[in-house]
Amino acid sequence: MARPTRAASAGAAGRSCQVSDSALVVFTPSGKRGRFALGTPLLEIARTLGVDVDSVCGGRGLCGRCQVTIAQGEFAKHGIRSAHDHVSPFSDVEKRYRGRRRLGSEGRLSCQARLQGDVVVDVPAESQVHKQVVRKRAEVRAIELDPVVRLHYVEVAEPDMERPTGDLQRLQEALREQWQLGELTSDLRMLQSLQKALRQGGWKVTVAVHSANRIIGVWPGFRDRAYGLAVDVGSTTIAGHLCDLATGEVIASAGLMNPQIRFGEDLMSRVSYVMMNPGGEQEMTRAVRQAIAALAGQVAAEGRIDPRDILELTFVGNPIMHHLLLGIDPTELGGAPFALATNETITLWASELDLVGVHPNARVYVLPCIAGHVGADTAGVILSETPHLSAKMTLIVDIGTNAEIVLGNRERLLAASSPTGPAFEGAQISCGQRAAPGAIERVRIDRASLEPRFKVIGSDLWSDEPGFAEATRRTGVTGICGSGIIEALAEMFLAGILKSDGTIDGAIAARSPRVQADGRTFSYLLHAGEPELRILQNDVRAIQLAKAALYAGARLLMDHLGVDRVDRITLAGAFGSHIDVKYAMVLGLIPDCDLAKVSSAGNAAGTGARIALLNRAARGEIERVVKRIEKIETAVEPRFQEHFVGAMALPHKSAPYPNLATVVDLPTPPAAEPGLAGDSPRRRRRRA
Amino acid sequence: MARPTRAASAGAAGRSCQVSDSALVVFTPSGKRGRFALGTPLLEIARTLGVDVDSVCGGRGLCGRCQVTIAQGEFAKHGIRSAHDHVSPFSDVEKRYRGRRRLGSEGRLSCQARLQGDVVVDVPAESQVHKQVVRKRAEVRAIELDPVVRLHYVEVAEPDMERPTGDLQRLQEALREQWQLGELTSDLRMLQSLQKALRQGGWKVTVAVHSANRIIGVWPGFRDRAYGLAVDVGSTTIAGHLCDLATGEVIASAGLMNPQIRFGEDLMSRVSYVMMNPGGEQEMTRAVRQAIAALAGQVAAEGRIDPRDILELTFVGNPIMHHLLLGIDPTELGGAPFALATNETITLWASELDLVGVHPNARVYVLPCIAGHVGADTAGVILSETPHLSAKMTLIVDIGTNAEIVLGNRERLLAASSPTGPAFEGAQISCGQRAAPGAIERVRIDRASLEPRFKVIGSDLWSDEPGFAEATRRTGVTGICGSGIIEALAEMFLAGILKSDGTIDGAIAARSPRVQADGRTFSYLLHAGEPELRILQNDVRAIQLAKAALYAGARLLMDHLGVDRVDRITLAGAFGSHIDVKYAMVLGLIPDCDLAKVSSAGNAAGTGARIALLNRAARGEIERVVKRIEKIETAVEPRFQEHFVGAMALPHKSAPYPNLATVVDLPTPPAAEPGLAGDSPRRRRRRA
Repeated sequence: MARPTRAASAGAAGRSCQVSDSALVVFTPSGKRGRFALGTPLLEIARTLGVDVDSVCGGRGLCGRCQVTIAQGEFAKHGIRSAHDHVSPFSDVEKRYRGRRRLGSEGRLSCQARLQGDVVVDVPAESQVHKQVVRKRAEVRAIELDPVVRLHYVEVAEPDMERPTGDLQRLQEALREQWQLGELTSDLRMLQSLQKALRQGGWKVTVAVHSANRIIGVWPGFRDRAYGLAVDVGSTTIAGHLCDLATGEVIASAGLMNPQIRFGEDLMSRVSYVMMNPGGEQEMTRAVRQAIAALAGQVAAEGRIDPRDILELTFVGNPIMHHLLLGIDPTELGGAPFALATNETITLWASELDLVGVHPNARVYVLPCIAGHVGADTAGVILSETPHLSAKMTLIVDIGTNAEIVLGNRERLLAASSPTGPAFEGAQISCGQRAAPGAIERVRIDRASLEPRFKVIGSDLWSDEPGFAEATRRTGVTGICGSGIIEALAEMFLAGILKSDGTIDGAIAARSPRVQADGRTFSYLLHAGEPELRILQNDVRAIQLAKAALYAGARLLMDHLGVDRVDRITLAGAFGSHIDVKYAMVLGLIPDCDLAKVSSAGNAAGTGARIALLNRAARGEIERVVKRIEKIETAVEPRFQEHFVGAMALPHKSAPYPNLATVVDLPTPPAAEPGLAGDSPRRRRRRA
Repeated sequence: MARPTRAASAGAAGRSCQVSDSALVVFTPSGKRGRFALGTPLLEIARTLGVDVDSVCGGRGLCGRCQVTIAQGEFAKHGIRSAHDHVSPFSDVEKRYRGRRRLGSEGRLSCQARLQGDVVVDVPAESQVHKQVVRKRAEVRAIELDPVVRLHYVEVAEPDMERPTGDLQRLQEALREQWQLGELTSDLRMLQSLQKALRQGGWKVTVAVHSANRIIGVWPGFRDRAYGLAVDVGSTTIAGHLCDLATGEVIASAGLMNPQIRFGEDLMSRVSYVMMNPGGEQEMTRAVRQAIAALAGQVAAEGRIDPRDILELTFVGNPIMHHLLLGIDPTELGGAPFALATNETITLWASELDLVGVHPNARVYVLPCIAGHVGADTAGVILSETPHLSAKMTLIVDIGTNAEIVLGNRERLLAASSPTGPAFEGAQISCGQRAAPGAIERVRIDRASLEPRFKVIGSDLWSDEPGFAEATRRTGVTGICGSGIIEALAEMFLAGILKSDGTIDGAIAARSPRVQADGRTFSYLLHAGEPELRILQNDVRAIQLAKAALYAGARLLMDHLGVDRVDRITLAGAFGSHIDVKYAMVLGLIPDCDLAKVSSAGNAAGTGARIALLNRAARGEIERVVKRIEKIETAVEPRFQEHFVGAMALPHKSAPYPNLATVVDLPTPPAAEPGLAGDSPRRRRRRA
């Protein structure tokens, strides 16, 4: 380590103190500074001062991670003049290096450039160990790159017959001396390849160290390839993001259908399968693990990397997916009291989950489940959206077959699951379907003519625009997906076709051929083609039940916290990404809120998995947060039922949707319409 | 926990302080005492006082481990009268229990018996947690029972929907409260069976905890079966000892041929096999692991236990066996600088070594190798023979294909390996064979007639006794084993047939038809049957080379320590157990020593594995000792060659065997016989 010269240690750094055999170094942006002996490499100076400069090779000019630039000119505030020739000329190493990697014309390898005079040294973001990984959405925090697995290039002493020690012990000694890594244990599979690697590499190897305490991999010579895979195991889809652990960048993403679908479409049918077929959980475990192994191979191929360079995997998933992934029978999650096997994080070898193809010692980290209905996917959402760090009262809803609801702020955080059922996914809707090409996803209804127009997935044209038939010739118009049904119902409501209590107004049939009697109820014809797409009264009821459950869950948590409004709302998950939040509010899926503060988070669960992959501290953070989350079980809360019944109606101009009323033209509340907010469910039930 | 009453806490325990609601309890043999409230269970009192009383069930009357006896009569030195009725009458639990287990007529379950008056309570050795496991040999320390794996019976809270926690977390909580075990992690395979076990056991389970920090197994209800297997992986034989972890007793032992023999008889031929057949180490690893799995099944069957109750395995073996067991290519051990992959202990799952059949989470502990030629078997020998704890200068030799030599005491400890070759195992001897029925193992030669008599393995009769032919009809007399050749040569020497320089004296041929010319040298006819067994001059030379290597190794270590004599000698290994130490000294295999202080240790390596199995602290102990052992590499020590050459001759009446000369009638040294001790090897070489 470079030591500051006497002048520096006396605290004087100005020009007046300059002595001939030392010079002042100022690092930007950190502002750290000191006087050092001429000839000292800049990297050594950075380390002495605690400036964050990356290096895998430990200053041997192999990795190129420690690039800096030398500022040019007078720096009055530092009291120095900095110049290129205040550091040693380009070394042969740097020249060779320039040919092989992007070392900008101004760039220097700080391990090669030596001090020759006062300099201001800028450490660009890419050269910092703890660099920030930028996320697309401005409202969320950046990820600080600090992966659990790190590579270290190391030079190991050769064996000495006079002092016989194991190759492993000499490697450990080298890691202690060259990387300050002490007390390292190691995996047997690493040990099995250690001796060959050391000799092939001429006693120079690169090792992968997990959690700064265990050597999990070894390669001959210098190596700079370490990847991680963040996986969101959904009931329907398994999504994986392959990340470069050196940059934090996602280099490939892919999704696969969850092959467990052949055992049951939704979660409960899979639990039923296990109950009916003892040992069936093992089939499902095998199926999902094989799919994940295939997914790893697929993203590796897309990212053009060797899958064996995947050293770390993180997982999120709902409790049943979590248990099946781990090979735990999910039967207990199928009925009260919904006991999880564990609500803590799990770290193990990928091989324990039969995830072949990745590095043989790759580690798996599984985020914690929160409660029997609130899984590691919700833990991932929290890690991504950080309600626990915010002063704002934040509501997060992640809508799948069930809706996971998180409410709170840095003071308190509550979580619950609401039994919305699969209506939002297009199931239980007569013309419903999964979000796929041909599915209607946007709907507008003319307030006067009551004629609809729509868009289908796979085309940017509205159905009344020229070329629509041509554009959708291949896919057809096949059904309506979750976001489409929300818009259809909301537009029907805003156009007066739907009444506040959710009945399709039969009186409209006189005004529009679109509304037709259908037995004792009425339906609305959305599309007259083949197939004919029609919104039935039962479809409206299904959505009403789902949205009432969602709203009631949110409302229940608000009661627990004693709040009447929330400061922001985040919609997570695929459904949340695709719906227009305005329509979600028109139907009353979510409580009233400033619409500017309602946003979609996309696959926030998957992002949480990615954060846990890239940042060690995030793991401790989510473990702590999950412990202090207050878990609310909707099934045992009488108030949930009350809110549920009260939330069946659609919002209107009076309370509780003042913000929404400023954005859309909500209907005026009828004089004595039954079942609206303010009308107690008890009275409503009596009336019913 | 029971708290001492005020009288006790004031330090007064005599009769004068006795108050009506408390009584005095004195435990023997510990002498711990205190006053406690009447009605307190004796086990609770024992725990409060820190008296070592075993319990798996935690005081629920299930395990029967906490048996004590109540002393009867006056105990003046304690100032009390103790009586059976000073504790509560036999409880129903104890009565039921008596039928099921051996609770002696005086025995009480200390968890059931409650204090009713002053008592002296004796805790028998079997009821102590840290009981001593007695060993057959008086000179070695007893093993304190303190296995790494312990069973704990525990009652777990049922899940509560209002406070949803995982089953694992409630188990951890119960273990913290009921067994003071905090910060427990767990194996995935345990977690996979946890939920069923809890429900089957009605929320009462027994868990196996490894190192007081990891839950490795769970069973419904109470369970009291935990076993361990100590394995010595020899080049020729794999020996296993199945131990009850509750008592420390060996309940079954078995040995199997090491199937690696088909890849090469001795160690170097197996390393050569790997060098010639890349990947060949994997075949050998597979073979040895399969054999160990079979051995585990065999001892389990012999001990009548379920092999899945084997929770822990410990291993010793020479460096090449050690590496092959672990799946590490042993090539590096085949040539200088003989680098070990690791010289530290290894703890892993049995499943990582493909050891199926035992408990799926069974752990393996592999003792450390010391140097490239000095393996974990020697570490086991040290743990068994404890030279590092002794003030005496101790020499231990473990003779196999090579001889491992340990010399030292509590101050310093040195270790080396001497290249004796396989002559002591009967190889390289014209009529040599393995120790098996039919092999000559004892030899006597009449000093006058020079006629031999012998014993063979499988019969207790000498060859000149009546009935010998009948007794050996089935086996025949097939060859001579290691201990037999030692006795044969020693007797030949003592009878004057062999000269000090190791030549068979041709002059004898005139006196006895047993000595016959055999080309330019002579031979001695040991047995005239079919096959004819004859000791050739080359046989003598082979043993001379082997014994000179052994002696030179010991002598080299003595030089390093600067000592001329040793206080005791221990011969370890199968060969060491079978040779008569007197004859070993006559031939000069070992240095001179009081013969009363020379002993055989049997399979001390295997005993070391057993100690590491039964006693946690022994693991830390051997790790520390191995680190401070001074490793001597005979191959690079010029003095080894000198000692080797000097040790070719046989001992005689003059130095250096004064102790031996008092026991046997050694020949008088010839006037100017070449090559004897005192004659420098350099001069000897010049003459040659």
